[in-house]
Amino acid sequence: MPKLDLSAIEQTNRTGYPEPYASDVAGRFYRRLVPAAGLSDFGASHVTLRPGAMSSQRHWHEGEDELVVMLSGWAVLVEEAGETVIRAGEVAAFPKGVADGHHLVNRSGEDCVFVAIGRPAESDCHYPDIDLHLGAGGGYTHKDGSLYAVGTS
Amino acid sequence: MPKLDLSAIEQTNRTGYPEPYASDVAGRFYRRLVPAAGLSDFGASHVTLRPGAMSSQRHWHEGEDELVVMLSGWAVLVEEAGETVIRAGEVAAFPKGVADGHHLVNRSGEDCVFVAIGRPAESDCHYPDIDLHLGAGGGYTHKDGSLYAVGTS
Repeated sequence: MPKLDLSAIEQTNRTGYPEPYASDVAGRFYRRLVPAAGLSDFGASHVTLRPGAMSSQRHWHEGEDELVVMLSGWAVLVEEAGETVIRAGEVAAFPKGVADGHHLVNRSGEDCVFVAIGRPAESDCHYPDIDLHLGAGGGYTHKDGSLYAVGTS
Repeated sequence: MPKLDLSAIEQTNRTGYPEPYASDVAGRFYRRLVPAAGLSDFGASHVTLRPGAMSSQRHWHEGEDELVVMLSGWAVLVEEAGETVIRAGEVAAFPKGVADGHHLVNRSGEDCVFVAIGRPAESDCHYPDIDLHLGAGGGYTHKDGSLYAVGTS
């Protein structure tokens, strides 16, 4: 059935970020649409950002394009040069290799909902604001390449 | 600027369909987002369908996935098995190689607006309802491979 039954697709706020960065996306609830839909050319997630939540840490990908389509509500797009409001019906695009970190932050009092399209990350992803790096094919590390402690408080 | 200024992107109702099939999409006005955005991993179009217009002739692609995100209004998704209404906020996905032609028809009294994501067609595209075929890397032909007359009435 091409029309996706969103309610039947698991919604989660899981993240691979280590603390203290995971808490910033605790209010990001997403459904991965592509396994359910049977697509393989690109990925897509249906994301609900609760008030105060970030879509991700501010980042940019060396090798993957991203597209965001806002469905309802609004959020603030943060980049090096400043902030831009993205409202329902608006679209933002992030070409691969452009070294300008971006993320959305829900500074409204209501949920916002968007669809994000992109390929799975296979290249380095850079986080300009924080001590985090995602290596090609690897996991999250400190910027010096050392591993984060996992499962410790 | 990642946020796309839709009003600055050319909107057109051009089509490569020969008549009599072109008329069905005369009320389909679209903006190609990807040249403006600088993306290359996938394509995206922002489409306004006027009342009565089709998104395309009913078709399926051998080699390209498609995703549709409805932004406002509603349209009817037509497939072999029947019809399904797609409303604002809903998503439909069409995996490559599934031999079930699909298109959207705006049977409402208002415009509907959606974003369609996919790669440029490089494989055969099949049109089950009409005498039309799009060959891999080629143009539109009759199903027997003969060319349509161009520029004649």
